[in-house]
Amino acid sequence: MSGYSFYDRAFRALNQYPSLSKLLVVFTVSGGGVAAYSGAQPSRGVVCADSSAGRGECEKKKKVVVLGTGWAGVSFLKTLNNPSYDVHVVSPHNYFAFTPLLPSVTCGNVEARSIVEPIRSITNKKNVDVQFREAVCFKIDADNKKVYCRSSQDTNLGGKEEFSIDYDYLIVAMGAKSNTFNTPGVEENAHFLRLGVEDALRIRQSVIDCFERASLPSVSEEEKKRILQFVVVGGGPTGVEFAAELHDFVVEDLSKLYPAVKDYAKITLVEAGDHILNMFDKRIATFAEEKFQRDGINVKTGSIVIKVADKEISTKVRESGQVESLPYGMVVWSTGIGPRPEVVDFMKQIGQTNRRALATDEWLRVEGCDDIYALGDCATINQRRVMEDIALIFSKADKNKTGTLNIKDFQEVVDDICERYPQVELYLKKKQMKNIVDLLKDLKKQSVEVDIETFKSALSEVDSQMKNLPATAQVAAQQGAYLANCFNRMEECEKYPEGPLRFRTLGRHRFRPFRYKHFGQFAPLGGEQAAAQLPGDWVSIGHSTQWLWYSVYASKLVSWRTRVLVMSDWGRRFIFGRDSSRI
Amino acid sequence: MSGYSFYDRAFRALNQYPSLSKLLVVFTVSGGGVAAYSGAQPSRGVVCADSSAGRGECEKKKKVVVLGTGWAGVSFLKTLNNPSYDVHVVSPHNYFAFTPLLPSVTCGNVEARSIVEPIRSITNKKNVDVQFREAVCFKIDADNKKVYCRSSQDTNLGGKEEFSIDYDYLIVAMGAKSNTFNTPGVEENAHFLRLGVEDALRIRQSVIDCFERASLPSVSEEEKKRILQFVVVGGGPTGVEFAAELHDFVVEDLSKLYPAVKDYAKITLVEAGDHILNMFDKRIATFAEEKFQRDGINVKTGSIVIKVADKEISTKVRESGQVESLPYGMVVWSTGIGPRPEVVDFMKQIGQTNRRALATDEWLRVEGCDDIYALGDCATINQRRVMEDIALIFSKADKNKTGTLNIKDFQEVVDDICERYPQVELYLKKKQMKNIVDLLKDLKKQSVEVDIETFKSALSEVDSQMKNLPATAQVAAQQGAYLANCFNRMEECEKYPEGPLRFRTLGRHRFRPFRYKHFGQFAPLGGEQAAAQLPGDWVSIGHSTQWLWYSVYASKLVSWRTRVLVMSDWGRRFIFGRDSSRI
Repeated sequence: MSGYSFYDRAFRALNQYPSLSKLLVVFTVSGGGVAAYSGAQPSRGVVCADSSAGRGECEKKKKVVVLGTGWAGVSFLKTLNNPSYDVHVVSPHNYFAFTPLLPSVTCGNVEARSIVEPIRSITNKKNVDVQFREAVCFKIDADNKKVYCRSSQDTNLGGKEEFSIDYDYLIVAMGAKSNTFNTPGVEENAHFLRLGVEDALRIRQSVIDCFERASLPSVSEEEKKRILQFVVVGGGPTGVEFAAELHDFVVEDLSKLYPAVKDYAKITLVEAGDHILNMFDKRIATFAEEKFQRDGINVKTGSIVIKVADKEISTKVRESGQVESLPYGMVVWSTGIGPRPEVVDFMKQIGQTNRRALATDEWLRVEGCDDIYALGDCATINQRRVMEDIALIFSKADKNKTGTLNIKDFQEVVDDICERYPQVELYLKKKQMKNIVDLLKDLKKQSVEVDIETFKSALSEVDSQMKNLPATAQVAAQQGAYLANCFNRMEECEKYPEGPLRFRTLGRHRFRPFRYKHFGQFAPLGGEQAAAQLPGDWVSIGHSTQWLWYSVYASKLVSWRTRVLVMSDWGRRFIFGRDSSRI
Repeated sequence: MSGYSFYDRAFRALNQYPSLSKLLVVFTVSGGGVAAYSGAQPSRGVVCADSSAGRGECEKKKKVVVLGTGWAGVSFLKTLNNPSYDVHVVSPHNYFAFTPLLPSVTCGNVEARSIVEPIRSITNKKNVDVQFREAVCFKIDADNKKVYCRSSQDTNLGGKEEFSIDYDYLIVAMGAKSNTFNTPGVEENAHFLRLGVEDALRIRQSVIDCFERASLPSVSEEEKKRILQFVVVGGGPTGVEFAAELHDFVVEDLSKLYPAVKDYAKITLVEAGDHILNMFDKRIATFAEEKFQRDGINVKTGSIVIKVADKEISTKVRESGQVESLPYGMVVWSTGIGPRPEVVDFMKQIGQTNRRALATDEWLRVEGCDDIYALGDCATINQRRVMEDIALIFSKADKNKTGTLNIKDFQEVVDDICERYPQVELYLKKKQMKNIVDLLKDLKKQSVEVDIETFKSALSEVDSQMKNLPATAQVAAQQGAYLANCFNRMEECEKYPEGPLRFRTLGRHRFRPFRYKHFGQFAPLGGEQAAAQLPGDWVSIGHSTQWLWYSVYASKLVSWRTRVLVMSDWGRRFIFGRDSSRI
């Protein structure tokens, strides 16, 4: 066996991150956890300081339950480095998928396995005890601080396992599902581009299926035309990227392998708005539309899908109301998101009905629930209006209770106001002012005292700048990292709060509220071209942007393994083309 | 778009094998084929010599239908280079899978996509017109020279398409299916290792499923033990390789990620014979058994599986008849093959009942069917006995009709006998003789004339050396290449037959009969060790053999693409380990 050890030493050194001792510790702790579970007793991990010395100074670890392993959940897990938590992760997927590359998976530019990383590999390298459970949380019991979960496996091993976990802190990061807007037939007949790796793989198989089916000798010409009509619904960045990737796949690879049917293949992109990529700069939208026209991709803007039948998709032109029908072989749905049923249940339970996502405060805490946080696509930050708190702000600033504020009074709370109400900063930026003092000066023309009415009118338009954050990976990742940093310094910040002044009560907030920093957005357009909109309305389009896209995405991947794999996939595609085997 | 063309030129040159003109020709021909099909008219491809010169000398191409794209079918397609055939390939898989690496796929040593190559890519590079249909042949009508096929797609696109194809020559290479020996519960509860890529992927998912399920908090200790009991049935090279790969996967990768349950994982290998790898040299079997014992793999030899229940597998000790039960989490069935139902139907139709595969003659022609060939796992060569033909051989050799043979007479037919009846050569080899003349000399002690009785008794034991060929990739590939070479030189050999003398009728056979050349066999044993048995009973075991395995398999892969991918997979596994994401 000496040779075996040699290989072991030589080749495996690189991925043996956890030392043996650490492995043993993890094993002991998790073993204890299991025993507690099977006794159905609420139990918390125990941390013993210096237990080897026999002093036995043990304290209970706070139990953090994380639901979901998407961008938000994994970003939280990666950033958390305070070993005083006992973390339990519940998710139906035992891996993290780098979702921005999912459209690439649909056409074989990148392999699915190259963009996923097992959660256990991610958490294994940490100093925090993390237990992963492959299950779906189907009920949150906020009163008893408990979540109920069901194994996500549907095997012949004897039905689905159910269990519950108690928590001290719950982090809801379950993501969202595609929104069909109750369009009939979508659920049954369309593919969804948003959901996950399985969907992307199914789309890939389905594209090949269409080509194989169209190649059968018994299929009529009309049927061939129908089978090879690909319809993409939704002109957002994902839909546009998929349409572009599919076009490249057909033109560069499939047309060589299926010469007899290649001329039947058509791609149609349906968008309800007036332009595709309408969240981007006008220049990008125009460029994309022109490129798609040159490529022969049919872009139907201003059309709403009203029905997806078995073999036919019906759209209505928004302006004229005219209904059109298009026989199709494959429909890919890539528009809008809605809350998952488990989240809807929880929202009902806590009285948050009629919302599209869980409402949280600026610290990502779910409104009305202590110790429950929500982040990523399943949550939305319910920003506090300045006008709601205007009297309290005024009285807090007016220390001497004179009924008027002078500039000096005001300057003491100005930073807190800006931090607590991010819309203030946006408003000032829009007005090209440096700070609120300028706003007041602007109103009174000179440095004098202001009363509450003047103050109110100065800030009256500030709340118009409140915006919901987009449901993107960028937001989710930043929220996860933010929350983990809060957890990392929880004890410290309890003692020395670092947040803004509390205007409604006394003291300061423990933490600074979450602030999203936008780094820009890409829209790959196929043919080795991409568009990017960077902060400050900086727009970049073309081949160089595609290379920027390659480098940004390669650097953002979750591990060196995925980085190497994705880059070798890109290399493989350049050299050998995309694979069309139906597996 | 200049930049695009640049990329196109720079990166795609490597995989643009077909020139534009070739593409156009293929398109035209296949277009014609489709039109003929849709009219449901039997039609054959047409080849026009020098049609550009307007002379219009056209002759009908012979239509060859190949059923199956395994080793035999693809080897045939790769070797066929005579453009006077119009080839139609029907298979439920639009790719060729390099099956010897399937056990590696089950544990993530190699990715599935790395070992497959689309049939269309293989045939695209050829000078022969090949049409591929993704379908299953469900009926062969030998009388009307027609096969009936059904699309293998099970989508919502509107039921399964059916169609028929006429043929001039039919090549049956549909492979075999796993044989459950009618053991109850196997079909329902076991995974099959033999069949294909999908099965390998399902096994991979299932292994991860077992570990995830065992990690759930509500699962009792006993259940954990059951869930992580992996049972492999069949101690042949595939079963042994899978058990070894699974052991390495558990020890090297999963035990790090699932520290809490790793000690429950157990692998049991059940084999009906007295030893595993019993087709190999005794030294290899002993080494493998000892290695498995050291590794903690439980090897149960001399045990027959009698039932695979939902959660329990029952075995019977062959000698004592004692029945044992073992709770399991996953059973992988890797023993024996049987004919596919479509092949059974065809066998019934042509009166070949009670056989385990389609019987062919030494030229791979199905017995009793003109123009139908069968090769690979679905076929078996029904060798002609020397004793059946002994009188005819004698009379053919006895040119002067003297009733006795002298050595000179005999020497004229000796090569033909050896070629026609391969068992003769094997018998001589066993007896350490050079040729049949020695055999006669041996009998008569000196060079004299022999009569028919002496001749009979000299050859009486020759037929004992007849052996069925093993159902391996090696045999199938050699048969495919052999048959393609026959087709390549069909016309030439009609005129100038190159085969042995026909003893029953006049003249010579067109072709030399098929002869299998054994190049040896590998048995990977895990832990970077392998065993190999090469021709001449040369045995090699250990790490160096594993490297031999790597190099042989890398060189045997079907394309440069798969070669690069498999080698990069091996590199990835050395550096990053195997991935445990459940996708």
